Amino acid sequence: MTEPDADTARVTRQLDFLAEIEKLKSVYRATPLADLSRPENSAEHSWTLALYAVVLADQAGPGVDAMRAVRMLLVHDIVEIDVGDVPIHAQGGTAHDSAAVQAAEARAAERIFGLLPEDLAADLLATWREFEAAETPTAIFAKSLDRVQPVLLNLQGGGGSWIDYDVTLPQLDERVGTKVARGLPGLWTRVRARVEPWFAARGKGV
Amino acid sequence: MTEPDADTARVTRQLDFLAEIEKLKSVYRATPLADLSRPENSAEHSWTLALYAVVLADQAGPGVDAMRAVRMLLVHDIVEIDVGDVPIHAQGGTAHDSAAVQAAEARAAERIFGLLPEDLAADLLATWREFEAAETPTAIFAKSLDRVQPVLLNLQGGGGSWIDYDVTLPQLDERVGTKVARGLPGLWTRVRARVEPWFAARGKGV
Repeated sequence: MTEPDADTARVTRQLDFLAEIEKLKSVYRATPLADLSRPENSAEHSWTLALYAVVLADQAGPGVDAMRAVRMLLVHDIVEIDVGDVPIHAQGGTAHDSAAVQAAEARAAERIFGLLPEDLAADLLATWREFEAAETPTAIFAKSLDRVQPVLLNLQGGGGSWIDYDVTLPQLDERVGTKVARGLPGLWTRVRARVEPWFAARGKGV
Repeated sequence: MTEPDADTARVTRQLDFLAEIEKLKSVYRATPLADLSRPENSAEHSWTLALYAVVLADQAGPGVDAMRAVRMLLVHDIVEIDVGDVPIHAQGGTAHDSAAVQAAEARAAERIFGLLPEDLAADLLATWREFEAAETPTAIFAKSLDRVQPVLLNLQGGGGSWIDYDVTLPQLDERVGTKVARGLPGLWTRVRARVEPWFAARGKGV
């Protein structure tokens, strides 16, 4: 294969991947936008999280590479093109981390990142897997951001998915708070203080 | 002021900014989504561009810092919260870069980035200004991505904003191609070859 042909094949795969990910804009989440005009989608959610990582980098613990977290957050939901979004409060909080969902997402990651040239596919698949495993300081930080943004957006929108799923504050603590606090304990204390009155006012604070 | 108070004030400003940028999800662009379900919005557009920078980093010229381009692309459209999106083909291609639009965007950048703590505000305002000036290799690369993605999305959607604005291929060359080619000449040659048949089939190729 001549050099120009090899480069054509490479660019073709890069553009194939970039065309495929356009589909994430039509994957809708449980959280409505702040103006309640429609549900948030997973593409714009990912943009928000990347900016959370940039803006809250100084709140991260030691060993966190904020720009690596940005890369993770840009790709973390791409598997939803095949699997859809599984809301954190669905099925009493049991669906999101189920083995079936995790297996489907792993297959989706291989298919979608596999559209890329091999070096890029391996790089972004490893980035996605590091995020999913939530073991490195950077992945723990990124996961905390992924969990805290819907809390703040629900609060902006007057309750959002907490109303739809009839969520109590202890359930929020268990399903969300523990994971936010793992990477950003100080931030969770502040955010919890902001949301506590919303739950208390509805008799769902305890 | 004690340390905890200073940190509270800082986090409050960080979260104020992150709440404000949620509004970008309700700023709609001229380009429809690939599935034609609705117009693209500026938040998800920014996510796509950040991934363009990650995936097409090896196509960039010398001196480009792809992760700095990611930061630029994450914030490049935030000013549209105040100013709205000005389509590239509106008013015969004259509106987008008009002095009035540029002045309004500069004011919006100062207001919105000014919500942040001073150090972050200065950092992201400088990042946004570097993108707008399009003089550094990284900014030129980022601008090229910002111009080429709508071309590929219009093609996926069967014409999109080219139909709405009755665009010819020479107009696309002038308004878009020259700017894509500035940072990514090889990529523009390939993308132009993909779109040329669309314009030719409609008698708009010359």
